[in-house]
Amino acid sequence: MSNVLAINAGSSSLKFQLIRMPEEKVLAKGLVERIGLSDSVFTMAIDENENESVIDIPEHETAVELLLEQLKSSGVIESMDEINAVGHRVVHGGEKFSDSVVITDHVIKTIEEVSELAPLHNPANLTGIKAFQEILPDVPMVAVFDTAFHQTMPEKSYLYSLPYEYYEKYGIRKYGFHGTSHKYVSQRAAEMLGLPVEQLRLISCHLGNGASIAAIDKGRSIDTSMGFTPLAGVTMGTRSGNIDPALLPYIMEKTGKEADEIVNILNKKSGMLALSGFSSDLRDIEQHAGENERAELALEVFAARIHKYLGSYAARMSGVDAIIFTAGVGENSDVIRGKVLNGLEFMGVYWDPSRNKVRGKEAFINYPHSPVKVMVIPTNEEVVIARDTVRLTN
Amino acid sequence: MSNVLAINAGSSSLKFQLIRMPEEKVLAKGLVERIGLSDSVFTMAIDENENESVIDIPEHETAVELLLEQLKSSGVIESMDEINAVGHRVVHGGEKFSDSVVITDHVIKTIEEVSELAPLHNPANLTGIKAFQEILPDVPMVAVFDTAFHQTMPEKSYLYSLPYEYYEKYGIRKYGFHGTSHKYVSQRAAEMLGLPVEQLRLISCHLGNGASIAAIDKGRSIDTSMGFTPLAGVTMGTRSGNIDPALLPYIMEKTGKEADEIVNILNKKSGMLALSGFSSDLRDIEQHAGENERAELALEVFAARIHKYLGSYAARMSGVDAIIFTAGVGENSDVIRGKVLNGLEFMGVYWDPSRNKVRGKEAFINYPHSPVKVMVIPTNEEVVIARDTVRLTN
Repeated sequence: MSNVLAINAGSSSLKFQLIRMPEEKVLAKGLVERIGLSDSVFTMAIDENENESVIDIPEHETAVELLLEQLKSSGVIESMDEINAVGHRVVHGGEKFSDSVVITDHVIKTIEEVSELAPLHNPANLTGIKAFQEILPDVPMVAVFDTAFHQTMPEKSYLYSLPYEYYEKYGIRKYGFHGTSHKYVSQRAAEMLGLPVEQLRLISCHLGNGASIAAIDKGRSIDTSMGFTPLAGVTMGTRSGNIDPALLPYIMEKTGKEADEIVNILNKKSGMLALSGFSSDLRDIEQHAGENERAELALEVFAARIHKYLGSYAARMSGVDAIIFTAGVGENSDVIRGKVLNGLEFMGVYWDPSRNKVRGKEAFINYPHSPVKVMVIPTNEEVVIARDTVRLTN
Repeated sequence: MSNVLAINAGSSSLKFQLIRMPEEKVLAKGLVERIGLSDSVFTMAIDENENESVIDIPEHETAVELLLEQLKSSGVIESMDEINAVGHRVVHGGEKFSDSVVITDHVIKTIEEVSELAPLHNPANLTGIKAFQEILPDVPMVAVFDTAFHQTMPEKSYLYSLPYEYYEKYGIRKYGFHGTSHKYVSQRAAEMLGLPVEQLRLISCHLGNGASIAAIDKGRSIDTSMGFTPLAGVTMGTRSGNIDPALLPYIMEKTGKEADEIVNILNKKSGMLALSGFSSDLRDIEQHAGENERAELALEVFAARIHKYLGSYAARMSGVDAIIFTAGVGENSDVIRGKVLNGLEFMGVYWDPSRNKVRGKEAFINYPHSPVKVMVIPTNEEVVIARDTVRLTN
């Protein structure tokens, strides 16, 4: 029995869950926001009771001290010794990490080396790691990478058709993201199906504000829709997904903006926000779809791009045994799931509109006779972090 | 009965076929190269006899005069009056042309207006049109657009998930290309299947040095792999196809090149040329695939990207009745066709390796029991130009 802290550190935030293993019971979870700004917000929930306090938190170390103190004062733990290990989410592992890893000085150096592939995220993740090393120097720590699960992709999936030296010199290739989530739901799907994951061809649709699709053959990711960065693939809340690359100089010329400004627009002002014209939040868009053509258009485009990936990845694996929906939209939107699944009978998908009404919990939404199973599985990246942390530190 | 000249004018070239309609008999065909350079080359073939001459041709008017003269002197026609109409290939019709059109001053002005969407091609096409107007002022002429066939795509296919004003102000959307070829093979496929095209869901793979895939539902293009420009979609001879758009500023930073230089590399130094490291020509690559890993890689990547489009477009149409291969690679490479078709049994594709050996002629390459038919159909853009020209000038 051990307690693992699962940590997701951003540049000004820190999300945590304290999980008792092997029961995978969440003892406490919370969020520190606005670190380094004034009026930082600390939120912690134990069982169903949530507590929020506003307090200045100048840096990540302070946040770590505060959360440990609160875990003690609230009686969740009696002493720091009861934190047996810490698992950290790290966005980008480049080609260096194909699995989670115990954090050493060498690992930290390597994460720093691949930081130019994720210049916003990796440094923030490292800030979290270093803060915990400062406060809990003797507790073993593990890094869990968003990209690691996709490192099993073969060359023909991950290589772009670009000058080969771009790959060799600059690391330009498809990495893929949301790996921890795709890994969790694929393993959970195998359990729910009562079959070893090694016997399954799965398509996992992680649909949140960011969205990615993965083709998971025999438990291994063999293709995914995101690319060198999380901008590629399907339409997302504010991201364009794939576009004709020749559009960049054209838009630059038309708008007088620089390439990186355009990419910023592609990341933050495109996607469903741009199509609908009023929101990146699918709930808002669904609410207005009846009366607003552009809202309807946003739904249609979003669903159509995912729908095409289902066909594409079924072809990639010579068929599919189950399709999984996860993350905010995937777990909760029967409208999107329905539009995505419509018209896939040719590949063996028969979905049940009444079962599809499920929200936020595990369920099969196919008809019992459907050769291809369709599942809703709430994702749980923290539990993967806790599992990997226990596996590697025991 | 009438004779139609089908013309494809480039900036320094002019391809022509003289076709007798309605028999669709090619009376003569040829090519003028290096117009405006020294040592221009004029090639003409009548029946099987090809004649080549090297001569200075300073401008397109000279080329037109020369080819008409040669048609007369070789006895193909007795007088200019026997040229009843001229049909011109024009690359880009923007959103203005969803069908071929009789050329008027207004049409020329409109083609000029959309030229910024195809700055290399449309002006060259117009040069050809103007040269013929100069020499044959009383002969009716028709423009046949590469983009027109795809104008039936619905919004959810052609809109990018970009700020909506980019579409409204700058015409940024998916246009698609190779439309004349996709149209020809889809109509020919319906004839070969003995069914009205209105009852068919077809996927057409135009695979040449440029390559595009089209989903043709009931005779209408509803989606295609090329985009705003012919750079998008699958890996091609020298073109990258789709990449993560965020790569542009990254490559710019790494190489110190401007955005339009990078796009030039994506167009001319990427694709199979970059993957293989030695050639953009599939025949060379196939020849070395046994002994050269990078050649094998180029084949695998090229085939895998097309293979995924087949699944994607089957999903788009809720299934597919026939898959068509056309253009240089599609008509001749059993290796690529085989790799593309492997593993599609889940969607009803059963192809026959022995029938697949066919090169350059019409054939079914599926097993007779295959629910999805697979066809090789040599493309014939000139005959579409001639047909449209007759239809619109009669």
